[in-house]
Amino acid sequence: MKKYTEMNKEELQALKKELDAQFAEVKAQGLALDMSRGKPSAAQLDLSMEMMDVLGSGDDLKCETGVDCRNYGVIDGIPEAKRLLGEMSEVDPDHIIIYGNSSLNVMFDSIARSMTHGVMGNTPWCKLDEVKFLCPVPGYDRHFKITEFFGIQMINVPMTPQGPDMDMVEELVSKDASIKGIWCVPKYSNPQGYTYSKKTVERFARLKPAAPDFRIYWDNAYSIHHLYDDNQDFLVEILAECAKAGNPDLVYKFTSTSKVSFPGSGIAAVAASKANLDDFRTYMQIQTIGHDKLNQLRHVKFFKDLDGLRAHMRKHAALLRPKFELVLDTLEKELGGLGIGQWTSPHGGYFISFDSLDGCAKAIVAKAKEAGVVLTGAGATYPYGKDPKDSNIRIAPSFPTLEDLEKAAQVFVLCVKLASVEKLLAM
Amino acid sequence: MKKYTEMNKEELQALKKELDAQFAEVKAQGLALDMSRGKPSAAQLDLSMEMMDVLGSGDDLKCETGVDCRNYGVIDGIPEAKRLLGEMSEVDPDHIIIYGNSSLNVMFDSIARSMTHGVMGNTPWCKLDEVKFLCPVPGYDRHFKITEFFGIQMINVPMTPQGPDMDMVEELVSKDASIKGIWCVPKYSNPQGYTYSKKTVERFARLKPAAPDFRIYWDNAYSIHHLYDDNQDFLVEILAECAKAGNPDLVYKFTSTSKVSFPGSGIAAVAASKANLDDFRTYMQIQTIGHDKLNQLRHVKFFKDLDGLRAHMRKHAALLRPKFELVLDTLEKELGGLGIGQWTSPHGGYFISFDSLDGCAKAIVAKAKEAGVVLTGAGATYPYGKDPKDSNIRIAPSFPTLEDLEKAAQVFVLCVKLASVEKLLAM
Repeated sequence: MKKYTEMNKEELQALKKELDAQFAEVKAQGLALDMSRGKPSAAQLDLSMEMMDVLGSGDDLKCETGVDCRNYGVIDGIPEAKRLLGEMSEVDPDHIIIYGNSSLNVMFDSIARSMTHGVMGNTPWCKLDEVKFLCPVPGYDRHFKITEFFGIQMINVPMTPQGPDMDMVEELVSKDASIKGIWCVPKYSNPQGYTYSKKTVERFARLKPAAPDFRIYWDNAYSIHHLYDDNQDFLVEILAECAKAGNPDLVYKFTSTSKVSFPGSGIAAVAASKANLDDFRTYMQIQTIGHDKLNQLRHVKFFKDLDGLRAHMRKHAALLRPKFELVLDTLEKELGGLGIGQWTSPHGGYFISFDSLDGCAKAIVAKAKEAGVVLTGAGATYPYGKDPKDSNIRIAPSFPTLEDLEKAAQVFVLCVKLASVEKLLAM
Repeated sequence: MKKYTEMNKEELQALKKELDAQFAEVKAQGLALDMSRGKPSAAQLDLSMEMMDVLGSGDDLKCETGVDCRNYGVIDGIPEAKRLLGEMSEVDPDHIIIYGNSSLNVMFDSIARSMTHGVMGNTPWCKLDEVKFLCPVPGYDRHFKITEFFGIQMINVPMTPQGPDMDMVEELVSKDASIKGIWCVPKYSNPQGYTYSKKTVERFARLKPAAPDFRIYWDNAYSIHHLYDDNQDFLVEILAECAKAGNPDLVYKFTSTSKVSFPGSGIAAVAASKANLDDFRTYMQIQTIGHDKLNQLRHVKFFKDLDGLRAHMRKHAALLRPKFELVLDTLEKELGGLGIGQWTSPHGGYFISFDSLDGCAKAIVAKAKEAGVVLTGAGATYPYGKDPKDSNIRIAPSFPTLEDLEKAAQVFVLCVKLASVEKLLAM
């Protein structure tokens, strides 16, 4: 197949006619498919159903220190839950606080706390004229929404397959004390599925920020979310790396079981230095009497330990892998060699990142919607929803059934072709 | 028995000698009892154990609108949970948002939101020179801790058996635009067990605050927590009253099932006007992807409706009533007529409020601790932990077994006598 970019006007017009016909056909099918969010499928949720039975009315619901998990108390998590999420986070349980049902909520609260109370004794951000965050792009829309909501100025940092552009990160944070943080999804990144290299993590740990209250928001959302048994990414553990570099307080590491057990009914955790955790606790002890210990107990009884978590994640992988492969095969088969798009091939996580010709993403998403396929909004992967090139689209293959996904992927490639031809014709 | 205040020095000295001997005897027993917090007893928690079985691995976990409660979505609560907590809050489900496991957390977040984002478009409180809250005293220590944590200046307002001194409340809020809220536990108040009168609620609803962003923080924590079938307090529903008065946005009403099902594993709710709830939602939709819908479903399946809740609360009452009566009987029998203390006799809630002679509360709490009985810290029921008269002590009879409670109550009255005699001798 000839590259679209090498076609002349007549060839493009002929192609458009053909694609228009195909598009009309697809529209007539009246599809209603969703590839917009990283939601587990019903089959994935079924994997955790036995968790509904692990606590029963006849059970003793005490944690291992004898505390009744049904009552108030134990503000920062029962020991066995700290151990489980400590293993998952590759840190000692002493460096863990267990939270409620969502790590996003903990990240939000961390920003809110920094706004009103400051970080470890530093000036509250709401008292400063300017607060900035670095945002590796494309990235996770809900991260960017949090910083936007608090009026924090966001600076785009380009992503590479090895992680954010560290030359730029080092340069910016060392010179500008108003830069207070950076959003990172270091493993199987959202949306690319990239994993930060050893060198990248080492450079993060060795940052010398001008701001004493600069923190790396290390959202390790996909730490154990591999697609393959053999082809797994490895991420250097950052807390230890920061400690080694003499920067123990530099990072907040977030994790949760949202895409392990049940989204919305999982448990979340923060791993950080003792000084950081004490800072978190100062806030927590006013904010709450404690999180849901029964749900902590439920998770520990169901997963038991890291081996249990890993075995469980292999079952998720078995359901997710064919979906990723179907989308990637379709992209390769339908768009390979056409010069109208590039995409990532992740070994884990929940997303594939697609880059169209510049100026086509919004048109592709709009066309897909017209044909009954909802994609993540174009621009969503950039701060303020503004993709400077209008080219990035996040593909989320997890939620639809394989059958629906096949239809959705066909609609997607058709919309890419059509939008690209229209773009080239308009040039 | 002669009033202590009418005894002469010799009588007091003889009495002190006798009490000292009793105290030495009690200390020798090496008790370790806790009457400090409003924690349900293990027997109360047993009442909800069947909730552990209502969701099973074979069940369909969809809510009534067909949404899979295991997955993301439905940010402000499943309809059946809104209905249940709507009934409990005496408002239409449309006026309800369901939250996570703690209403305290929602109150904290409401203050945090007001600090950084303001109330319904008004200036964020963190941008103001001065923010004040009215605090009916004695009151709930965790309320006061929240406002203290955010640097909000607290103004004491005396409580009466009909509610806060409304002359003072009306006067202050109408004149001072820096007063942004008032903490209320309107039914079976913490610590007195008072319920605001019809007149008080009407006057609240008709407030004309100088600050457009003044809100009543109506913590209806004990709405259905009666001790008696026949002798129940009645509280006028404030949302309707505010609407009637043309002040629909004046109040946030908080509730939770913490002391209905399991503390820490319950569900919380806010009832408010549509405009207020939209304000809450603006924040929520950035803060979280949603709360624990499985726990919402669990509560609905277990309690079913208001009748179910009421029947369940009667079982709680059967366990709590003898404890309250034991403490009240002990107080009456041991301290009645001595002129060294007054106390409340609530019809519901979790506490009894005790007022000693001025300047004795700290000494009583310290002595009780010495004898192995932990009470809520003296001063805790006042903002900044400062009880101007050093006389109020909150008694929490719920947690100990009846047997332990009897011992604890005896220790308490002994400590009251001893501290009072010492006070009178020192005068």
